[in-house]
Amino acid sequence: MTPKLEDVAKRANVSKTTVSRVLNNRGYLSQKTIDKVYAAMKELNYHPNAVARQLYKNQTNLIGILLPTVANPFFGELTDTLERLLYQQGFKVLIGNSMNDPKKETAYLNQLLSKQVDGLIVGTHNQGIKQYDYQDLPVVAIDRIMNEDIPIIASDNYHGGVLATTHLIDRGAEKIIHTNGPLTLETPSQRRRVAYEETMMAHNLTPLTYTVDFNISSEAKKVVFQKLLEEHPDVDGIFAANDTDAALIMQVAAEFGRHIPDDLLLVGYDGTKLIRDLIPSLTTIIQPIEAISTTAINVLKQRLAHEDTEKEYILPVELWPGTTG
Amino acid sequence: MTPKLEDVAKRANVSKTTVSRVLNNRGYLSQKTIDKVYAAMKELNYHPNAVARQLYKNQTNLIGILLPTVANPFFGELTDTLERLLYQQGFKVLIGNSMNDPKKETAYLNQLLSKQVDGLIVGTHNQGIKQYDYQDLPVVAIDRIMNEDIPIIASDNYHGGVLATTHLIDRGAEKIIHTNGPLTLETPSQRRRVAYEETMMAHNLTPLTYTVDFNISSEAKKVVFQKLLEEHPDVDGIFAANDTDAALIMQVAAEFGRHIPDDLLLVGYDGTKLIRDLIPSLTTIIQPIEAISTTAINVLKQRLAHEDTEKEYILPVELWPGTTG
Repeated sequence: MTPKLEDVAKRANVSKTTVSRVLNNRGYLSQKTIDKVYAAMKELNYHPNAVARQLYKNQTNLIGILLPTVANPFFGELTDTLERLLYQQGFKVLIGNSMNDPKKETAYLNQLLSKQVDGLIVGTHNQGIKQYDYQDLPVVAIDRIMNEDIPIIASDNYHGGVLATTHLIDRGAEKIIHTNGPLTLETPSQRRRVAYEETMMAHNLTPLTYTVDFNISSEAKKVVFQKLLEEHPDVDGIFAANDTDAALIMQVAAEFGRHIPDDLLLVGYDGTKLIRDLIPSLTTIIQPIEAISTTAINVLKQRLAHEDTEKEYILPVELWPGTTG
Repeated sequence: MTPKLEDVAKRANVSKTTVSRVLNNRGYLSQKTIDKVYAAMKELNYHPNAVARQLYKNQTNLIGILLPTVANPFFGELTDTLERLLYQQGFKVLIGNSMNDPKKETAYLNQLLSKQVDGLIVGTHNQGIKQYDYQDLPVVAIDRIMNEDIPIIASDNYHGGVLATTHLIDRGAEKIIHTNGPLTLETPSQRRRVAYEETMMAHNLTPLTYTVDFNISSEAKKVVFQKLLEEHPDVDGIFAANDTDAALIMQVAAEFGRHIPDDLLLVGYDGTKLIRDLIPSLTTIIQPIEAISTTAINVLKQRLAHEDTEKEYILPVELWPGTTG
């Protein structure tokens, strides 16, 4: 016969409430009580079925996080921070690294619709997924435009673009090239490009953007950067789309005998703790990962409670001076 | 009245089987059919309840991954790879970054015991957690010794230690210092330390290990490395516990006017794709993340099927030459 909660209580010589509190990690419990209850569970081979409880409550306390890949420092730190904050609020985190994989993203969305997760935080770049057209979904987007209904949390990409470009101009660069993702991708980060172009023109300089797909391999990216230096030997400043691209540009520049910062200035983007630890010399724009995470979670909770939210939340960036730019 | 699956089928003018296949992403489906079914679901406000289905099957298809933090490149790439491979096999991934947090690790373990996840892959360093003492748990450990019952998947730490140390000796270093985690931590990676010590002694050299806690901040680690260079101005080789530590050592060495590799050789450990992209000059030992992930998943599936497994799976490492060591 399958053992029941009351069998565990009897065996451990505690109340049913105590067993339940041990199972749910609720309230103060002495280590002795916890050990007694687990010993009794073990002896009886008792496995409480939380799935049944979850069905009863009709909520899972699971939040799905869909990002391109946690192996990228920015998305790694974002996932780390989101998970830490969500856990403090009683949620557990499902991840779906769905770079280049709209089918996978769709599968997670179906999971939301079939109530296997309570909500989703989405920062992937896949397009044309129909399921987002449901109204009032418990979904928030990080740095991505989904549709009219889904709130966006983003850092101040426009100001980041102005900061980076102005910094390069102030340091004396004139022929400045910006690298960015394809224009077809409708993301708020395209505002960095707009800010770069407007800032250049306001200084009577000619903007030139090189398109570099985020999804290609670092080897393929290096080829693009080699082409950039070949085609524009007079480039004296580069505003890179992100810090890992900036690191690749540092290597390619060295191959071309270009010395950073003496004859080429370089500014990255993202400014994660990891990159600032590994390459502290890299001048970059710091995205506020903690603020982005906190805001995304608060807005998601408002969506879960069917409260009104803003269409967009824009969070401040700052410059990490470094020595490359 | 709550709409049912057959209402959706009727509305979309397809069979119930087709609706079910759309919901489960199974078999070939034209985009037209998928769109029709979702349009009908939307019109009827139909939400299939997967939790009920899951209760019926008594499995969740969720695997929990407990690692210190995905913000670290090694654990980030490991999580990325595990998630990708598990997803291909029909599993979704819950993450718990539980560095320094045995309570959090315990909570995940309780989740396993209460059947909210099917299995766990654990690589955290928390100790003294009672719940691991259940027999035949669907748990595998990555680079961590848990108990007699739980299989360990690890890269060949001993050989990695020999490779790194021999490489430094071959390049002419004699006063070589190794940095490693506290000895109290019983991890297979302590075998790197043993390999370092044995290799040094086999060459009539004196081993010296500096203890650096993985969990402290990079600022605190730099202080340890400064102390190392102050106390041992004659050090001519360092075998670092991991690549991020090695990157910090590169910075501290520069502060001390030490030139790598001319008067100080340096070898890291882990060799993630990210680090090889960002700092390709760093000589390091590559852990086989893909093989570790594949093996961990296979062994976990054997545990889930109550099949016998080995106590330990050791996977080959290789040297990334770089130019620092």
